[in-house]
Amino acid sequence: MEELWKISENSFNPKQINHYETVFSQGNGYLGTRGSFEEYFPNQQRATFVHGVYDDIPVVFTQLVNFPDWTDLEIILDGETFDLNTGEILGFHRELDLRNGLLTRSLRWCSPKGKISRLDFKRFTSMADVHIACLLVRVTPENYSGELICRSSLDGAVDSLHFKQWDWVDQGVEEDACWLKLRTHATNIEIGMAQKVSLPDNPNHKQEAWNIREKPSLSLTAALQAQESVQLEKYVTLYTSRDGEDPLNAAREGLSQISTRPWADLWRDHQSVWETLWERNDVIIEGDDKAQLSVRFNIYHLLIAAPRHDDQVNIGAKTLSGYGYHGHIFWDTEIFMLPFFTFTQPEIAKKLLSYRYYNLPGAREKSAKNGYLGAQFPWESAGDGREVTPTWVTNQHDRTSLTRIWTGDIEIHISSDIAYAIWLYWQATGDDAFMYDEGAEIILDTALFWSSRLVWHPKSSRYQISDVIGPDEYHEHVDNNAFTNYFVRWHLRKAAAVAQWLTQEHPQKANQLFKQLNLTQQTVTNWTSQANQIYCPIDLSTGLIEQFDGYFDKNDILASEFDPRTESIQSLLGNEGVNATQILKQPDIVMLMYLLPEEFNQEVKRANYDYYTPRTDLTYGSSLGHSIQTVMDTRFGNESQAYKNFMRTALMDIEDLRGNTRDGIHGASAGGLWQAVVFGFGGLHFNQDTWWIEPKLPSHWKRLSFKFVWHGELIEIDINPEEHPQ
Amino acid sequence: MEELWKISENSFNPKQINHYETVFSQGNGYLGTRGSFEEYFPNQQRATFVHGVYDDIPVVFTQLVNFPDWTDLEIILDGETFDLNTGEILGFHRELDLRNGLLTRSLRWCSPKGKISRLDFKRFTSMADVHIACLLVRVTPENYSGELICRSSLDGAVDSLHFKQWDWVDQGVEEDACWLKLRTHATNIEIGMAQKVSLPDNPNHKQEAWNIREKPSLSLTAALQAQESVQLEKYVTLYTSRDGEDPLNAAREGLSQISTRPWADLWRDHQSVWETLWERNDVIIEGDDKAQLSVRFNIYHLLIAAPRHDDQVNIGAKTLSGYGYHGHIFWDTEIFMLPFFTFTQPEIAKKLLSYRYYNLPGAREKSAKNGYLGAQFPWESAGDGREVTPTWVTNQHDRTSLTRIWTGDIEIHISSDIAYAIWLYWQATGDDAFMYDEGAEIILDTALFWSSRLVWHPKSSRYQISDVIGPDEYHEHVDNNAFTNYFVRWHLRKAAAVAQWLTQEHPQKANQLFKQLNLTQQTVTNWTSQANQIYCPIDLSTGLIEQFDGYFDKNDILASEFDPRTESIQSLLGNEGVNATQILKQPDIVMLMYLLPEEFNQEVKRANYDYYTPRTDLTYGSSLGHSIQTVMDTRFGNESQAYKNFMRTALMDIEDLRGNTRDGIHGASAGGLWQAVVFGFGGLHFNQDTWWIEPKLPSHWKRLSFKFVWHGELIEIDINPEEHPQ
Repeated sequence: MEELWKISENSFNPKQINHYETVFSQGNGYLGTRGSFEEYFPNQQRATFVHGVYDDIPVVFTQLVNFPDWTDLEIILDGETFDLNTGEILGFHRELDLRNGLLTRSLRWCSPKGKISRLDFKRFTSMADVHIACLLVRVTPENYSGELICRSSLDGAVDSLHFKQWDWVDQGVEEDACWLKLRTHATNIEIGMAQKVSLPDNPNHKQEAWNIREKPSLSLTAALQAQESVQLEKYVTLYTSRDGEDPLNAAREGLSQISTRPWADLWRDHQSVWETLWERNDVIIEGDDKAQLSVRFNIYHLLIAAPRHDDQVNIGAKTLSGYGYHGHIFWDTEIFMLPFFTFTQPEIAKKLLSYRYYNLPGAREKSAKNGYLGAQFPWESAGDGREVTPTWVTNQHDRTSLTRIWTGDIEIHISSDIAYAIWLYWQATGDDAFMYDEGAEIILDTALFWSSRLVWHPKSSRYQISDVIGPDEYHEHVDNNAFTNYFVRWHLRKAAAVAQWLTQEHPQKANQLFKQLNLTQQTVTNWTSQANQIYCPIDLSTGLIEQFDGYFDKNDILASEFDPRTESIQSLLGNEGVNATQILKQPDIVMLMYLLPEEFNQEVKRANYDYYTPRTDLTYGSSLGHSIQTVMDTRFGNESQAYKNFMRTALMDIEDLRGNTRDGIHGASAGGLWQAVVFGFGGLHFNQDTWWIEPKLPSHWKRLSFKFVWHGELIEIDINPEEHPQ
Repeated sequence: MEELWKISENSFNPKQINHYETVFSQGNGYLGTRGSFEEYFPNQQRATFVHGVYDDIPVVFTQLVNFPDWTDLEIILDGETFDLNTGEILGFHRELDLRNGLLTRSLRWCSPKGKISRLDFKRFTSMADVHIACLLVRVTPENYSGELICRSSLDGAVDSLHFKQWDWVDQGVEEDACWLKLRTHATNIEIGMAQKVSLPDNPNHKQEAWNIREKPSLSLTAALQAQESVQLEKYVTLYTSRDGEDPLNAAREGLSQISTRPWADLWRDHQSVWETLWERNDVIIEGDDKAQLSVRFNIYHLLIAAPRHDDQVNIGAKTLSGYGYHGHIFWDTEIFMLPFFTFTQPEIAKKLLSYRYYNLPGAREKSAKNGYLGAQFPWESAGDGREVTPTWVTNQHDRTSLTRIWTGDIEIHISSDIAYAIWLYWQATGDDAFMYDEGAEIILDTALFWSSRLVWHPKSSRYQISDVIGPDEYHEHVDNNAFTNYFVRWHLRKAAAVAQWLTQEHPQKANQLFKQLNLTQQTVTNWTSQANQIYCPIDLSTGLIEQFDGYFDKNDILASEFDPRTESIQSLLGNEGVNATQILKQPDIVMLMYLLPEEFNQEVKRANYDYYTPRTDLTYGSSLGHSIQTVMDTRFGNESQAYKNFMRTALMDIEDLRGNTRDGIHGASAGGLWQAVVFGFGGLHFNQDTWWIEPKLPSHWKRLSFKFVWHGELIEIDINPEEHPQ
């Protein structure tokens, strides 16, 4: 059913342009381009980002840089500029084909002077050659003949949320092409872009290249005959100095290799990569079209964001589809997005983990600066692995007051989240080579950080961790956050296991690594003993785990008591108000039990699930929460709640449930959705040795089918409840 | 002597481009343009600012917006772009003629391919019609013939210190002209600009208009014959929505009224205004060419910055010549720059004071927000009179730490500085109408603020003012800063006098104003009684006034003990270090005695001058300090020190003494220089009733001549020491 692959916009509402710009984003794992119109329209947030290309800005330190817009096109129809802000729209349809990332727009427009034209746009960013982007426009005058002018610029004066980050370096024009070289102002990353534009069916058209500084342009003029179509094709190439020494030359070379009429060829190559991708990654749901379409939509956004050719970049919290969080990278990658890649395309998961390996110097710098050993990963990172969490943000209501952001200082569980993702990857792939080359070093050096971060508390004879933030960010500066403490225990034990594995299997490497990290076998033994003495609270009579010291003394109130509402409980009560309650921003203990199921027995899990779930702000707290909650809901038999949380995740961006899709796709939500389907409804479980499934499909689903890779073997799961009743 | 009117640059040093951009700034009281080259050169800070056109930006709240550069010109000589970064410079001379603001550049350039050209540039911003800017280039090929291309854009994508503040609105091209309409992003100020470019002696040239979005351009192509000159003329018009409803139409209309060959006409009109200006404002110094030239240079910068047609704008600390202090307005205007205008062009002084009158709503808002009555003027203000002092600035050495800026909160003497400037203006002009219309309201409403700001101290039976910053900003959060306390006493007394004058002379107006400000005669009586009870410290035995409570307990160390040095004592000792000493950033008590001479007898002045002068960081403290110190040095007979401080002021920007001239002209220093010459060396004194002079010329000066206006009468002073020995 073709419509289960297409996201459509059937009429044009100017108020929704920023939402659809995000939804209709295109990309190829190298670049991402928002779904803005080709022509100018007020209040657009046109943007193209490239993984790893950051530049310095005030307050938030660094952000992804907006590239010159490859889609830019000005169309002048018999003297009138095509502009949806003028004239009349007689018909409008936009559509993103998730199967192949093709974005099309078809419309009929009546100009202010009454000239009616039909315009059909198509564009894609090549998955086969990630440095190529292609655009095609067919213009059909209905009730007039006249002159068509198409103008296409490489705009080097583009801004990134009002900040101009490019310095001009060089540019030039040729008869039918032009090119531009720019450099980021602070980080000195150079880029080269080249474009050509043609009207292949109109050999008599006039072509001019305008060499305006910072904005080289091509201008094509052709005759329009009523009822006859003219087709324009545009090809852009784009390289950066991260790809090689001479990005401008690469872009010009790349452009020259595109033949005269290349659309069909480029499209074929591109589409065939997409076919392969979906062959592996599609999840088939029957009996629930909305779920089917939205799951594909979220997988599409993971696929276009995933760096397939670069192991020194990562996926920001908002992918490459918007300015939200400035392209910074969080635990969203390891905990929410990575399982999808680990289980479907381990080669991409490995690249994402390698990003952390290359960022070890930054993590070591952070740890040392804080007075600890080993490596402490930043809560937010970008181009070079240093901590880039903004320290202060301005208060919207009082511009003279600033709010201190503490996550970069004390939301420290990320170092274990990364170790966990490596462990999961190792478990699912058996990729000893990665563990040997990179994984072990990360796990051991972060364990070293923890061993120095733990504080011995003589009174209670245990190790404690004070002053942290757990996943539930409604409570800051807490002591002994159970999520963190249990995770550190797990981490130190796994680090000891990795050290043992390395020593046994690769003694020479173990030797070298121990020397490099300044470790001894005694250190490792100490880790185990420290792990055994970390304070991991549990009430043996009830099975309840207190989220942090004093949590149970907080005002006990349920999230439902605030319903109905349209904002978070934090925004209703204020930061201090919500802090005084037991309300969570997102699952914390429940998340812990999801991630480390073997650490707890079923009764403990049930007790904590029952206690914490109604105290969690699932509707307007963190957007990360629903997906994991879905999995846990399925495991505890709450089918209707599971489905509700699942759909909140699935429709987050398509229906703009949080009102901020304009800032970019919720990458963690997209990754969490796959986990909700596969680990939740699909019931995929695994341990050290094997995997098994215990499906828990929503009752109206007729089929769920997905594929995953286990130790190199591709496994296809096809659940048909009528054949195998639950 | 013509050379005493010209600032020259005789060879090109790329490292000094930003310094000369400031020095060679041009303007006409409406706009200011930095002396950048017409063509692109790396690391230029091209900028054109217009008074009153601010837009919001992060951290510092608001800043002057950089306009599309009217000087922009790309010149292509037989296929090679003219670019001083390539080829070879065979000769170079730049010159700013202070008599008429003409900036010329003459150079010989050998292109990379060996083609030698001579280029002669001239440009000015019209003083006769402030909306017109004119540029002329003569190109002479020496050893080749070929094609000349000149390209001129209106660049709407220009940034302001990397921040893009313009939203595009509209643009268009005609055969030989193009135009652009933009709008500031947050403040919604619209601007219209139009340009035309011509080669009047080459009727056969080719002319093209390129309608590139955000950057409409004109491109002219002509034949170059060896040894024959081609002359290009460019005219730009510029209006904003502050000037009238349709700035674009005004700009296009303005352009259309410029005739085909207008240079001579426009130049004549422009020059005749300059003649009139210098006729009034010139200060003639004989026997000291360096002093002569630099005094004219500083007066030139005051004249081009002074708004002559707008009473709702003011002069920022760095005039319109750079990004320093973002165009914010400080006490620099009232205390340092205004006396020049008050005594030479009172009509301009009145406009500058009216700016404060129009900003009373912002001052009342600030006062009310702080819990006080009346009007409290902001320490820094910009477009709308609200406080815009940045509250926090980032630390250059640690990006996560912020420094709190307190001046906006507690450097409160500015409200009295403004009242003082009004009083001085009234004294010098006798302009009762201004006092009636605007001055009284400002003086009374700020007095009302003070009356509520004073705190009664029962133990010592006096009013005190705690937690302020005086002119000496090395000491923050001080109690009973004598400058502030004495000034408030003066202010309340003068307010009572103004109230009395108004009541006697204009009882109806007094009635209306009292009602409006919620004043009674009792309030005014109370002011006098409060004034008599303000703590104004003085040691009757020594005559010494303690700068603030506890100042004399600070570590007593002289500024000379740190010499030689190349940085401020604050930067040597750190903020806390310098705070622990008695070292001042600039005259504080001495400044008080300069401003309010009748409040102190000669012995007290002498004692405090002798005590505080050696404790003042005159070389690298505030740039405001030297000029006032010069006056006081002359009054206490320190001729050599006076001349040293005078030359520090005079050469501040020409010789870049503080290393920050790139950020703009030190406006307060320029204004202070006039005071140093006229009030210091010239010895002009005045009181309520009359003026008199007691010249104190440096011994090598042969003549000092200047003019000033006293109660509408133009007075010419010509001091010739040989005729009248001192």
